Amino acid sequence: MESLQVPSLEQLRREVWEANLGIFRAGLVTMHSGNASGIDRRRGLVIIKPSGMDYEKLRPADLAVTDLEGRRVQGRWKPSVDLPHHLYIYERRPAIGGIIHTHSNYATSFAALGRSIPAYLTAIADEFGDEIPCAPYVDNAGDHVGEAVVKCLGQAPAVLLAQHGAFAFGSTPRAAFKAAVMLEDVAKTCHLALLLGKPRALPPNEVRKWYGRYHTTYGQRKKP
Amino acid sequence: MESLQVPSLEQLRREVWEANLGIFRAGLVTMHSGNASGIDRRRGLVIIKPSGMDYEKLRPADLAVTDLEGRRVQGRWKPSVDLPHHLYIYERRPAIGGIIHTHSNYATSFAALGRSIPAYLTAIADEFGDEIPCAPYVDNAGDHVGEAVVKCLGQAPAVLLAQHGAFAFGSTPRAAFKAAVMLEDVAKTCHLALLLGKPRALPPNEVRKWYGRYHTTYGQRKKP
Amino acid sequence: MESLQVPSLEQLRREVWEANLGIFRAGLVTMHSGNASGIDRRRGLVIIKPSGMDYEKLRPADLAVTDLEGRRVQGRWKPSVDLPHHLYIYERRPAIGGIIHTHSNYATSFAALGRSIPAYLTAIADEFGDEIPCAPYVDNAGDHVGEAVVKCLGQAPAVLLAQHGAFAFGSTPRAAFKAAVMLEDVAKTCHLALLLGKPRALPPNEVRKWYGRYHTTYGQRKKP
Amino acid sequence: MESLQVPSLEQLRREVWEANLGIFRAGLVTMHSGNASGIDRRRGLVIIKPSGMDYEKLRPADLAVTDLEGRRVQGRWKPSVDLPHHLYIYERRPAIGGIIHTHSNYATSFAALGRSIPAYLTAIADEFGDEIPCAPYVDNAGDHVGEAVVKCLGQAPAVLLAQHGAFAFGSTPRAAFKAAVMLEDVAKTCHLALLLGKPRALPPNEVRKWYGRYHTTYGQRKKP
Repeated sequence: MESLQVPSLEQLRREVWEANLGIFRAGLVTMHSGNASGIDRRRGLVIIKPSGMDYEKLRPADLAVTDLEGRRVQGRWKPSVDLPHHLYIYERRPAIGGIIHTHSNYATSFAALGRSIPAYLTAIADEFGDEIPCAPYVDNAGDHVGEAVVKCLGQAPAVLLAQHGAFAFGSTPRAAFKAAVMLEDVAKTCHLALLLGKPRALPPNEVRKWYGRYHTTYGQRKKP
Repeated sequence: MESLQVPSLEQLRREVWEANLGIFRAGLVTMHSGNASGIDRRRGLVIIKPSGMDYEKLRPADLAVTDLEGRRVQGRWKPSVDLPHHLYIYERRPAIGGIIHTHSNYATSFAALGRSIPAYLTAIADEFGDEIPCAPYVDNAGDHVGEAVVKCLGQAPAVLLAQHGAFAFGSTPRAAFKAAVMLEDVAKTCHLALLLGKPRALPPNEVRKWYGRYHTTYGQRKKP
Repeated sequence: MESLQVPSLEQLRREVWEANLGIFRAGLVTMHSGNASGIDRRRGLVIIKPSGMDYEKLRPADLAVTDLEGRRVQGRWKPSVDLPHHLYIYERRPAIGGIIHTHSNYATSFAALGRSIPAYLTAIADEFGDEIPCAPYVDNAGDHVGEAVVKCLGQAPAVLLAQHGAFAFGSTPRAAFKAAVMLEDVAKTCHLALLLGKPRALPPNEVRKWYGRYHTTYGQRKKP
Repeated sequence: MESLQVPSLEQLRREVWEANLGIFRAGLVTMHSGNASGIDRRRGLVIIKPSGMDYEKLRPADLAVTDLEGRRVQGRWKPSVDLPHHLYIYERRPAIGGIIHTHSNYATSFAALGRSIPAYLTAIADEFGDEIPCAPYVDNAGDHVGEAVVKCLGQAPAVLLAQHGAFAFGSTPRAAFKAAVMLEDVAKTCHLALLLGKPRALPPNEVRKWYGRYHTTYGQRKKP
């Protein structure tokens, strides 16, 4: 998932800001719940939403910039209290360049039950390439959240966390944003289907066909 | 469903652009899922959304224009990967002038179960004139999607595709847009009713009465 | 429900226009479904949405003005095909000054099942003073819709129509708009409650207490 | 919950106005349902929404200012008919500086059934520190509503009221707004989870861990 072009820190800051604004505008977060971050691995810096600030008032300069141990190096505001989870995941998953944490309603309704979301839909195959797994409940001490997420993280760029919420990943903050939005979208459709009847998961070989097409022929080679 | 006035290519481009923007604003598509196209049969050209581009940034000039074999003749962006399905349907259904593909949540919740939407409501009779059928699951190889849709397409200007999403049709992109929006609207009401109890389909002769009135006395003769 | 001040025809036109725009912005109508009207009983005129026109493009001057037999006296556009139902109701219910017809999703999910909405909530008691009844299914011939609605119309300023939609009423178009919006709001809450358990209707004497307070002490005497 | 800085009356007026506008924009109220208030305990004044006025037209100067017995001391409009409930609660709970009353759909669906919302989610532990209780049904006579709310009010800054709606509290109107928004958000997720299966409440010691972290390390010390 690693992106080939290395953006400048200011480009990354802008992308992290857009991802934070994006999850708010897409209705994935409420008040101050949730956060988006991005990592600049060359410089050893992480950019993340500050704690408890209104999304719609957030400016790029308000974002917190920390080193990989979480020490603030830029910005006047304290970083999100979830920063340790982001750092833990970045350290163990070098292909990840952006992380988003939300309590979006439909995804979290599966998490409330400790349920994963099977690949009921071609959209899940396209975007996630597998079911979206749910990590067991953990408390907020130390690295418990980060450990639970990393242990559970497989093919799909998203993990549910029981009784808690969702994490979404990408090679960039923008890609993580897309995963977070698509997670809530497919969670909603799957929820609606489960209320009407018993959907069946696509078999693994069908999932691979959709994922393969989506990740080879889709999109633009030159940047739109 | 064929429209009488033949619009210029630029009028068609604008209408296809409005339909793509419209499905985004109406909440029928998420991120880049879904696409709208239109055909100019006299010139042998199809206009369709480019692959993987943000709806809200799309300008009319960004749309891809192809011939009936899918060769790009205008536009700098690759057309939607769903273009072959659109072309297959246009070829077999000469009355169709606009096609929209979405994974809109309520319609797709029926599709997830392979269920058609019976004519439970006068709004379904008005707009669709019949139940909205669901084609069986097919993979994305060759013309499988196009074949499944065409085989299933009857009176109603919409078809669900199992575990996948929805296609909506019209004599123009604008008419297809209306069918796509109304499909999601009636799917939502039917879903809500099915959670509360057992709705009954209107008998065929009642469906005909509503459809007949709607398609003879409704709307304005001169263009508003 | 009769209002004391008689507005000018232009004031009524503006209010009917606001009600049509309002039901669109409140999400009660989709594409062209639904319509709002108002009556000027002194002049013997009814103002109503034209048939099949986009709500967001509608200007006050586009509204159709008819006499009480439905003959157009102003406006270049054909009135809504539902005009006969509005006229039928205005004729039989002299206290009604505004009528709104929608297929709003939650209200219509009850109508799909032919179910009334009992006074489960104090908000229903406040606004409707009774359960919201559901008239049996009728076809669209002659005055069938108008007859079914009038026969069913009691204390509550709203009636559901089986497998069809909802009608809301008021002494003015603005009051009818409020009833239409509140109908969908309470229908949604009642629907959600019915999915979780078995709500109980408030007893009639409790309903009367809420209705009484709301209709004596609520609001401003001078016009805000 | 008492705030340390005492704002001027004009600052409080602005905050009450923002809370009223906020509950409307967040979709927690419909038409004129619901209201937000704030108290200036030093001056012995309460500021509250006027009765029956459109939220989107409300200006700060339109708010009603009353003394602690509910006598209007500023403003040309009558205060909300729910003012006595606000005054009753302010008198018995000196730590409360802002109160919000809504009939928000998901919270009220629990209230319709007289059901509390257990701490199914870490977000409930974070924000409410306990389950959100539901007071039994009371009519609107005298102080019945205020009494029922105060008797039920525990750790969580929100109370449901059976067959009626919700009250949310904070040390300031802004804090009460956050509680009202988060209440509807967690009510929605819990509702969705209850439709899919049987969520389990977090044990009290787990609730305390989340609440403790959220109320010690979260947010900014200096005002953003």
